Amino acid sequence: MKEITGGVCAPKGFRAGGIWCGIKATSKKKDLALIYSEKSCNAAAVFTSNLVKAASVLVSQKHLSHGKLRAIIVNSGNANACTGEAGMAAARKMAELAADLFAFSPQEAAVASTGVIGVPLPVSAIESSIDALGNSLRNDAAGHEAALEAIMTTDTRKKDGAVEVMIGGKPVRIGAMVKGSGMIHINMATMLGFITTDAAISRGMLDKALIRANVRSFNRVTVDGDTSTNDSLYIMASGEAGNNEISAEGADYEIFADALESLCVKLARAIARDGEGATKLLTVTVTGAADEKTAECLSMSVASSSLVKAAIFGADANWGRVLCAMGYSGAVFDPDKVEVSFAGKSGAVRVCANGASVPFSEADAKKILCEEEVEIRITAGAGPGKAVTWGCDLTYDYVKINGDYRS
Amino acid sequence: MKEITGGVCAPKGFRAGGIWCGIKATSKKKDLALIYSEKSCNAAAVFTSNLVKAASVLVSQKHLSHGKLRAIIVNSGNANACTGEAGMAAARKMAELAADLFAFSPQEAAVASTGVIGVPLPVSAIESSIDALGNSLRNDAAGHEAALEAIMTTDTRKKDGAVEVMIGGKPVRIGAMVKGSGMIHINMATMLGFITTDAAISRGMLDKALIRANVRSFNRVTVDGDTSTNDSLYIMASGEAGNNEISAEGADYEIFADALESLCVKLARAIARDGEGATKLLTVTVTGAADEKTAECLSMSVASSSLVKAAIFGADANWGRVLCAMGYSGAVFDPDKVEVSFAGKSGAVRVCANGASVPFSEADAKKILCEEEVEIRITAGAGPGKAVTWGCDLTYDYVKINGDYRS
Repeated sequence: MKEITGGVCAPKGFRAGGIWCGIKATSKKKDLALIYSEKSCNAAAVFTSNLVKAASVLVSQKHLSHGKLRAIIVNSGNANACTGEAGMAAARKMAELAADLFAFSPQEAAVASTGVIGVPLPVSAIESSIDALGNSLRNDAAGHEAALEAIMTTDTRKKDGAVEVMIGGKPVRIGAMVKGSGMIHINMATMLGFITTDAAISRGMLDKALIRANVRSFNRVTVDGDTSTNDSLYIMASGEAGNNEISAEGADYEIFADALESLCVKLARAIARDGEGATKLLTVTVTGAADEKTAECLSMSVASSSLVKAAIFGADANWGRVLCAMGYSGAVFDPDKVEVSFAGKSGAVRVCANGASVPFSEADAKKILCEEEVEIRITAGAGPGKAVTWGCDLTYDYVKINGDYRS
Repeated sequence: MKEITGGVCAPKGFRAGGIWCGIKATSKKKDLALIYSEKSCNAAAVFTSNLVKAASVLVSQKHLSHGKLRAIIVNSGNANACTGEAGMAAARKMAELAADLFAFSPQEAAVASTGVIGVPLPVSAIESSIDALGNSLRNDAAGHEAALEAIMTTDTRKKDGAVEVMIGGKPVRIGAMVKGSGMIHINMATMLGFITTDAAISRGMLDKALIRANVRSFNRVTVDGDTSTNDSLYIMASGEAGNNEISAEGADYEIFADALESLCVKLARAIARDGEGATKLLTVTVTGAADEKTAECLSMSVASSSLVKAAIFGADANWGRVLCAMGYSGAVFDPDKVEVSFAGKSGAVRVCANGASVPFSEADAKKILCEEEVEIRITAGAGPGKAVTWGCDLTYDYVKINGDYRS
């Protein structure tokens, strides 16, 4: 597997673009994006588990039931959630506008929105700019970049990537862009992700690979514990790579699924690192748990703890909070078997063994905790279960960003 | 029911005291407290649900199995949690020291600790000061005050109270003190609570009344979602009031249980108001849910949301986050039936009806959200279920306090 450039435009058959249509009225940053495939693609998606779903999610879920997509139209600056019947009409209108551009069925257009909840979406701004959006489409890195800029909200960094693998002697590409920095928790809160591939792969296997990748990447990221109304992760497969269609498990599927998972893990880490106000990426690695599910539960509880996150911000080796967060996770383990280390580029310091304090150098621990990427390594026992989750520190700026988001 | 003074010393038969023994080495604030009854009391307690339990909790759970207490010895400044076998020995030693003061069985002494996790408890400091602790005991408000000061950590306010009710023509008193401001979540994280009463009441009914009061008070408070290793809520009943012993449900029990619940709700609100770094008390009232459990789940999810809490800090009427937090709570409700208002002393402003935006005055909403006590009123549907929970805003100071707690 090699990393390549071009993002969602790296796979054959895709074009992308992004413009400012007026939803971000004050900042005038790009707020409308389109990802488009010349051919009808097999498509799969994962949506928010929140009971309150944005209109875009409800409309897209319906359209996705057919398993085919030509385009995804995305706006930022307004979540079109809690907007009633008018919001549903606006989401359907977005799909129609995208479909009319290239005269395909609106059923083959997905819709995504991100931004403030509960404010009517000014769909007329999208309507007036739809031709400009169509004209902005390009099949190169510049098209990808423009679309990526247009899906961002409080993101401070671009989060994208593309990889190439060989399947049956043919180069197959996967490209992706994601947005998300606050409201991030298990089940992908306010995360939007768009993945394209030119692999020939059946709808069923595409679905399977996406779910597997998501479970081990975006579902293991937490920023603030809030799961949003709008989370959506899409994949579209154009089949242009010319490989024999992947229609069952086997070597070809494994290559594809591993590459997809690897790309998603990279982007999940990037989301955690870009958590609202975050100064550090926090990785929590749990081994020795009874099983993977237990390891994930322990790891996520530690990565989600406000007290752990504040301690990481303060570079305070307060490992007691790690044990405390494990203890209230609901997972079963023996506290007397727990070992905890803090690790970074400058080394690792063991701070707890057999569930109790061990002598350690506060200076060494402080040095590690002041790094930009901090890992908490936990051995929960002698079992085979392991899992990695990602989070970030809790900072003054998180509070600042979210204290007055709407203005 | 009337409010009276004297705290845990208001009921007949109790003495209390508090001193500095040296655990809070730097601040030299009081760090050791004793609550003592001349007679053996019927006693009940509720402990943390955290799988990682402090040594004091493990020792006290064992002692409480006999249902009788003469004294509770409490230290602050060190949680004696994750301290291994040495920690267990230290907790047992604390019980022995208290028991030796008045020559009763250590089984009748409970032990509580609060402070940093994972640091060995300097039990020798307690041993050297045990006589001074015994000499500090008084049966009046000054004794109560000294003990209350000695159980506090990051608390900025004293949280105590006492009430008197008539049962069978006899005045019966209940007095209480609690500590806790961070690490507060469902199941009473880092909360210690000590309640005394002179009611004559059987162990079984005392247990029942305590559980009922706790479920509707301390279990409905959240500050940061972290449930601690040390939470304990105790009640001791001396029987000195001379009422006929309450040994079954009925009018006498109801009077007692209502008074206890009312006192606990008052103190639970005080804990939320004193949340680490908090500037506002947040009350979340849910009505119209399918049942009380559903209402509690919805209410707690809203009160726990970092995004809601940051919006309350910023006085931002971002009601979409309220719906979002309801949506990921796991409770079942119809989003299209939800109504939300913000309320305070200056009035109430409805911001959402039928799950969508309604026109409202931003100025009026801002005025309410700038008050010291803010209520989010939610109608979740047309069901009979209702519940109230309490929390606080998320502020810069929360991050500051918890960024370097150990130093």
